[in-house]
This record gives sequence, C-alpha cells and structure tokens, in this order.
Amino acid sequence: AVAMPAIAQSAPEVKWRCTSSFPKSLDTIYGAAELMSKTVAEATDGKFQIQVFAAGEIVPGLQALDATQNKTVEMCHTASYYYVGKDPTFAFGSAFPFGLNARQINAWFYHGGGLELLNEFYKKYGVYMLPGGNTGGQMGGWFRKEIKTTQDLQGLKMRIAGIAGQILAKLGVVPQQLAGGDIYPALEKGTIDAAEWVGPYDDEKLGLQKVAQYYYYPGWWEGCASLTFFYNQEKWNELPKNYQAILRSAAAQANGDMLANYDTKNPAAVQRLVKAGAQLRRFPNEMMDASYKAAQELYEEIGAKNPDFKKVHDHAKAFRNEEYLWWQIVEYTYDDYMVRARTRG
Amino acid sequence: AVAMPAIAQSAPEVKWRCTSSFPKSLDTIYGAAELMSKTVAEATDGKFQIQVFAAGEIVPGLQALDATQNKTVEMCHTASYYYVGKDPTFAFGSAFPFGLNARQINAWFYHGGGLELLNEFYKKYGVYMLPGGNTGGQMGGWFRKEIKTTQDLQGLKMRIAGIAGQILAKLGVVPQQLAGGDIYPALEKGTIDAAEWVGPYDDEKLGLQKVAQYYYYPGWWEGCASLTFFYNQEKWNELPKNYQAILRSAAAQANGDMLANYDTKNPAAVQRLVKAGAQLRRFPNEMMDASYKAAQELYEEIGAKNPDFKKVHDHAKAFRNEEYLWWQIVEYTYDDYMVRARTRG
Repeated sequence: AVAMPAIAQSAPEVKWRCTSSFPKSLDTIYGAAELMSKTVAEATDGKFQIQVFAAGEIVPGLQALDATQNKTVEMCHTASYYYVGKDPTFAFGSAFPFGLNARQINAWFYHGGGLELLNEFYKKYGVYMLPGGNTGGQMGGWFRKEIKTTQDLQGLKMRIAGIAGQILAKLGVVPQQLAGGDIYPALEKGTIDAAEWVGPYDDEKLGLQKVAQYYYYPGWWEGCASLTFFYNQEKWNELPKNYQAILRSAAAQANGDMLANYDTKNPAAVQRLVKAGAQLRRFPNEMMDASYKAAQELYEEIGAKNPDFKKVHDHAKAFRNEEYLWWQIVEYTYDDYMVRARTRG
Repeated sequence: AVAMPAIAQSAPEVKWRCTSSFPKSLDTIYGAAELMSKTVAEATDGKFQIQVFAAGEIVPGLQALDATQNKTVEMCHTASYYYVGKDPTFAFGSAFPFGLNARQINAWFYHGGGLELLNEFYKKYGVYMLPGGNTGGQMGGWFRKEIKTTQDLQGLKMRIAGIAGQILAKLGVVPQQLAGGDIYPALEKGTIDAAEWVGPYDDEKLGLQKVAQYYYYPGWWEGCASLTFFYNQEKWNELPKNYQAILRSAAAQANGDMLANYDTKNPAAVQRLVKAGAQLRRFPNEMMDASYKAAQELYEEIGAKNPDFKKVHDHAKAFRNEEYLWWQIVEYTYDDYMVRARTRG
C-alpha cells in the first residue's frame, strides 16, 4: 500500500478528445488517429482514453488547429499545410512542392533536426507536433483534357490549394478551392477543368475517372504528404512522463502504419481506375521544369518577407539535396531495375 | 484500495533481457533496440525493464534466435535471414534478392499479410516476430577490380552470405563467410576479392575503401534489410495486455526510427567515402539480368523441396509485383525528376 501514491501519480484517469480534419470515409488517414487512440488505451489499461472525432463533429475540419490552440480539444489529427493561410511556414510539416519523399521527410523529422525546427515555430501557436502518417507520393490529379505543354495550363481552372496553387498560378492556372465532395459535380459541369485530390485509393472514392479521364503523375507538389498530430502545449506538459512516452510511441507507430496502409492499397486501386477508364499520363518534362522554376521563385518571394519560412525552407531544401544525392545511388537504381524486372514474372 | 489488485495486475515489475546480434559500434542498428528499451521503460514508469546486451555479452550474435527459443533470454534483436541455415524461409523476415524495398516490406508486414504469414512459420521455433528496423537499400559492396561483365565474376572470392551467396555461386562466385571484423585484413591480403557489408555509414567504419576501391550499387540482394525482434512465444503470452501493446508500439517506433537514422547518415557518409578514394560503380545491367535469372532458378529449386519457402516466396513476390506496378507511376517518376532537379539548387 506504500506504493499507492506513486502508482496513482503515473496512471491517472485522463480523457482527451482528438478532433480529426478528415471524414471517416478517408479510412487510411482517419484510421491512423484511431490506431493511435487504440494503442494509448491498451497501453494504459484504459486509463488514458483519447476519443477521435471526425471533421464536423466538434469543429469543421480546417479548424482543428484552432480548436487545439484554444483548448476546445486537447489534440487534433490534421495536416500542417492546411494552415498556410496563417503562415506559409506551416507547409513544411506536411509537404512542399519539389520537396522530400516519404522516407526523406521522416529522416528529416526524426534525425535531421526537422521536428525541433518545426516545433520551435509551432510554439507561436501554443501547440506541439508529432508526425501522424503519410500518404506517400501523390498523383497530379484529373484533367478533362491532355496537357502537352506548359501553354496548355493557360486559363485552366484547377482545384488545387495552398502553395502549389500559387506556383501553378505563375504558369497561368486559375486555382480553385473546393471541398472533396464538391469536386465531382464541378468537373462534371465543367466549372473546373482539373482537380487534384490524393492518390488512387482515395481518388477512386470520388469517382473522378467518370468526369475527367486523364490521370496525371507525379504530383510534384506532394512528393509525399505527412499528416500531423498537434497537441495543446499546456495539455501535453500536464501529462505524466509515461503518458508522454506512450503518446510519442503511438504517434510514431501510426505514422509508419498509415504509409504501409496506403502502399498496400494503392496498387489495386490504380488498376481498378485504369479498368474504369482512367488514362495515365506523365506530366511533360518541360512543364515539370517550368513548375520547378516557378516554385523556386515563389520560395524566394515568400522567404524575403518571412524569416521563419526562409529558415525552415533553407534547412529542408539542403536536406533534400543531400538525400537525393544518396538516393540516386541505391534506392533509385534498385527501383529502376525492379520496375522493369517485375514484368518478367 | 479496492482497485489495487487490478493495478498490480496490469503494472507488474518485469525484467527482461534482450540479446542483440550486433556490436554497439553498429550504432544505428544497436540503437533501435536501445530506443525500444527506453520507450518501454518510460511508458511503464520503469516497471517493465528490458536490458539490451551486445553480441557476445550473453551469447554470440548468431545464436540470438536459439537463446530466445530456449529462454536464455526473453527476446532478441537480430536479422531473421541470419537463420537461413535452419530454413531458407527465414530470409523473408529480412530480405530476399530482388525483393521488396523498405517501404514495400513494411507494407507487406503490416497490411499485406506478411507478418501473419511469417509468424505462422516462426511458431515452429517458439518465437513471435515484430519488425525491428530497416537499413534501406544496401550497397553491392567493395571490389578490388572492376566488374564489367558477368564473366568477371568467375572464380571471384566474395564475402557474401546466405541466399545471395548461392545465387552468385551460380554465376561463378566463390562465396565466403566472414565476420565484419575479418573483412579488412582478408581484402588487404587478397584472400578475398570482394566483400559486401551494409551501406556507406556502416561500411565507412570498416575502412574498406583503403583496400578495395570499387564500390558497387545497387545491392540487389538487399533492396532493403529489415531487422527483427523475436520474442519467446511463452514469455510474450505471459505479459499483461498493456505490456504487449507497449512492446508492439515501441517496436513499430524503433522500426521507423532506424530507417530514418540510416537515411539521415548515409548521404554524408557516401560523400566522405568518395573523398577518401571510393570509386562508385553501377552493376552492369547484363550482370543484373543474369543475377535475376539465377535468383529465380534458386527460388524454384528451394521451393520444390520446401513448402514453407514456396508459400512465403509466392506471397511476397506477388506483393512485390503489385508494388512495383504502382511504384513506377508516382514514386519512381518523382525520384527520377528529383535526382536531376537537385543539381539545380
């Protein structure tokens, strides 16, 4: 009985709410928050309960950060780059055009100093961040007409958000902001000419192949997209150390699990989409080059006005350059051989 | 006080020993077991302690599985493919030549049915397995002379183990088994002509660039190598559910963390090796094709005698083919663009 106070101290009953920016229908993304919640409950024998709420149940999806900041909830599962309207520096927690691929962003987060750098920035918003899943490389989206040169982008109305939209605007695209559910009717009516969403497994649910047959790749604005757990900093600090360790471990587990889930589900989905009429097209190299140039211009412009952005971008870009120097040796040449060997059975 | 028995039940004092197959000098690999141990201790307020022992401290490195099976220790951190001498099916827990890359093997383990399939096999040895880290794609090793055609492999004495050694033997290589510390003197004296180890960060420690200047890629026998936690099945079953959840989460965290660690450290290491005289060379495509063909022959031969091997190989290979069908669309084309874009700053 002497040990009781210590036990009570380290295993208090804690109930948290986690608001997700996503609907349950995006099961790979939403599932990562559920896996985290399940692990935390199991690891604490049910003493630390985190209930996950779908977008709209507590606050709308894009208010997840604000709700965490103002303690409406203790934490959220979202994507950092949804908040580039507050500060474009939020991009780097998820993706930046021509940025890191999924393995590289995790290297940057966990061992490259990225997480420390970002959490320094997130302090301004009263939140602490841990990576919370990854989609892997995304598709470039659905186009009603083929894109043969950069010229074909002139006046193209495309559903694309954030920094990628600003880059494409430099090439003549008219970016549109639309919720997932509004994409299909807009493409069907021709209100928009193109739309990007995620990748085969998620895109299939929207049925876009029925209204825009050209399915482009790679989505150079999202060489991967990392999802995000934000914790209210004060709420995090109040937790006993063992609960913090459990949360940290559960977040890392969910981070890897979501990527494995996408990597398992996308291959079958892309084959179903092609059977259903999707025409796969690679973005012309000339357009990739024009986009890369426009991206660097935009980074210069934003960085000139925003020291946080410049600091994080410089760091992430230098890391990316080192990564790709190494990548071209083993990872790229192995994949290069295997994409061809595959067809030999 | 009524709650005491339940609390005591779920947070018993448990002390485990984890024998590693690795020396502490392989800090990226050894560190994954340490991270796991640290997480488990923190998550349980020190009640569940797992002490990690370097190779040789309790048993030699390659007896880690046996020590776990016979309860000398409760668990080990090793590489499943070290035990192909017991049964070649052990390869699939780590790597098989022309197999899955790092993301793909995690997809196969966690969502593709791979872990269930392997654990069904491991039951025969009284152990339960969870992935415990990944090196990423490995180098093809150090050669004293350039390899220009498959003919150049005739009579080549190469330090290479397991299934890869058997494949290369079909092409005329004389495979040699040597511990890491014996590679340098053997290459220096010319007792062997070539040796493969891991990748830049680990290879650099052996100083092989001083005695064999040609550094080949990609190591097609290890598109990645997954490390392995084996738990004695009975010891695992005796744990309370919450400790099992903590172990599972800590293993997944360590699994991702090691890969992030290698991906962070390899880029600088390969640059240092090149400065120190290493000459990077890509394996000739003709030799890759000959190796691929020899690999398929070997898989047929082993599979004809070993139903476990055939079952797991068929499953893993089918998964690999699906993965690379998808990989060639986004991941490969994104990397393809980025390895060139990198040089533009």
